[in-house]
Amino acid sequence: MSLPVSLPATYAPTGVFVCFEGGEGSGKSTQARLLSQRLAEQGFAVLLTFEPGDTAVGKELRRIVLSPETGELSHRTEALLYAADKAEHVERVVVPALARGAVVVTDRYVDSTLAYQGAGRAIDVTELEQVARWATSGLRPHLTVVLDVDPATGLGRAGDLDRIEVEPLEFHQRVREYFLDLAAADPDHYLVLPADGEADKLHEAIRTGVEPWLGQAARA
Amino acid sequence: MSLPVSLPATYAPTGVFVCFEGGEGSGKSTQARLLSQRLAEQGFAVLLTFEPGDTAVGKELRRIVLSPETGELSHRTEALLYAADKAEHVERVVVPALARGAVVVTDRYVDSTLAYQGAGRAIDVTELEQVARWATSGLRPHLTVVLDVDPATGLGRAGDLDRIEVEPLEFHQRVREYFLDLAAADPDHYLVLPADGEADKLHEAIRTGVEPWLGQAARA
Repeated sequence: MSLPVSLPATYAPTGVFVCFEGGEGSGKSTQARLLSQRLAEQGFAVLLTFEPGDTAVGKELRRIVLSPETGELSHRTEALLYAADKAEHVERVVVPALARGAVVVTDRYVDSTLAYQGAGRAIDVTELEQVARWATSGLRPHLTVVLDVDPATGLGRAGDLDRIEVEPLEFHQRVREYFLDLAAADPDHYLVLPADGEADKLHEAIRTGVEPWLGQAARA
Repeated sequence: MSLPVSLPATYAPTGVFVCFEGGEGSGKSTQARLLSQRLAEQGFAVLLTFEPGDTAVGKELRRIVLSPETGELSHRTEALLYAADKAEHVERVVVPALARGAVVVTDRYVDSTLAYQGAGRAIDVTELEQVARWATSGLRPHLTVVLDVDPATGLGRAGDLDRIEVEPLEFHQRVREYFLDLAAADPDHYLVLPADGEADKLHEAIRTGVEPWLGQAARA
């Protein structure tokens, strides 16, 4: 089944929506935290969040999709569980925070679904994107920071591997390429940085990249 | 966001896919069981199944969507959880059984999503149908039996009410109307029967309605 694409991008008129994307071991959770702390110290209203799992139902869905005990799932089932997590996250967490002017910093968002469930699992990405955009009402980050890392290096940094991390290296290479393709297609809303530099320097580059958007952010 | 519709209907070339739909207290679970028993006695390979919840992950999703403890969910979250249940059910249970020629009798399918989450919750049904059809790869029942009951009567027959059943009567009236609209739009694949007759007579009418499809069913 081939669905036609109709995906109007929606950007919040208040607040700033910043997303961190990247493979395992790219250090994005660390950088998301550092950026949030820095902006909070500078007086901005900040919400640090993540996908999947930062709502009550999302916690249950996170366990299902990431626990090795779940075993094999139909690829569409997995994609729809991630989409359900996103729907709850966007409506209950992200949109209300943006509405009050906060800088919302999320560790993973729609691009992860497109990269992991689409490019990784080889689901038709056009169809998958329709589902993910419907789940999130078309809401896009003002800026997505892609921390780019060679999967062979990044996976070596991860501890116990979850249900997704155990996929073979080729899977993670497709994921990496897809993040880079998304960034290349929309340079105004993406910042790609190599993840292998020093954390401090990386943080400064990210802070600089976010700067142009802060005009629409509220003070705490 | 308005998505264009592109929903090619797919009917399994082997086996017979029969679906029971209807409101609470319509007796559809009883009739699904009676039909399955009758066909099995007649020598057909039969699988009796239901949505949501007839897979391992589906059991967890059923608990989430139906337990009053879940509380309020975003409407899209709820719809996507039902869609995830369907994706797993179709790929793992329904399609393999049809492929071996079985008569698959399911208690609820896509129409329930359209009626409850679409007409009931007032989500845009066109968008919702895209998601539900994607989840189920466009697979449609050869015959859907709608057991029509006045919600005021049907809800009175239900015991403890679940998260959906506690919705107000207007919700269940919209659901009822939507089932009838779906049936009216595709009379070749629907059989509408008033649910208030005797169970035995209802069963005979259903058995007669299924008869024309049994040529493509395998013997057990």
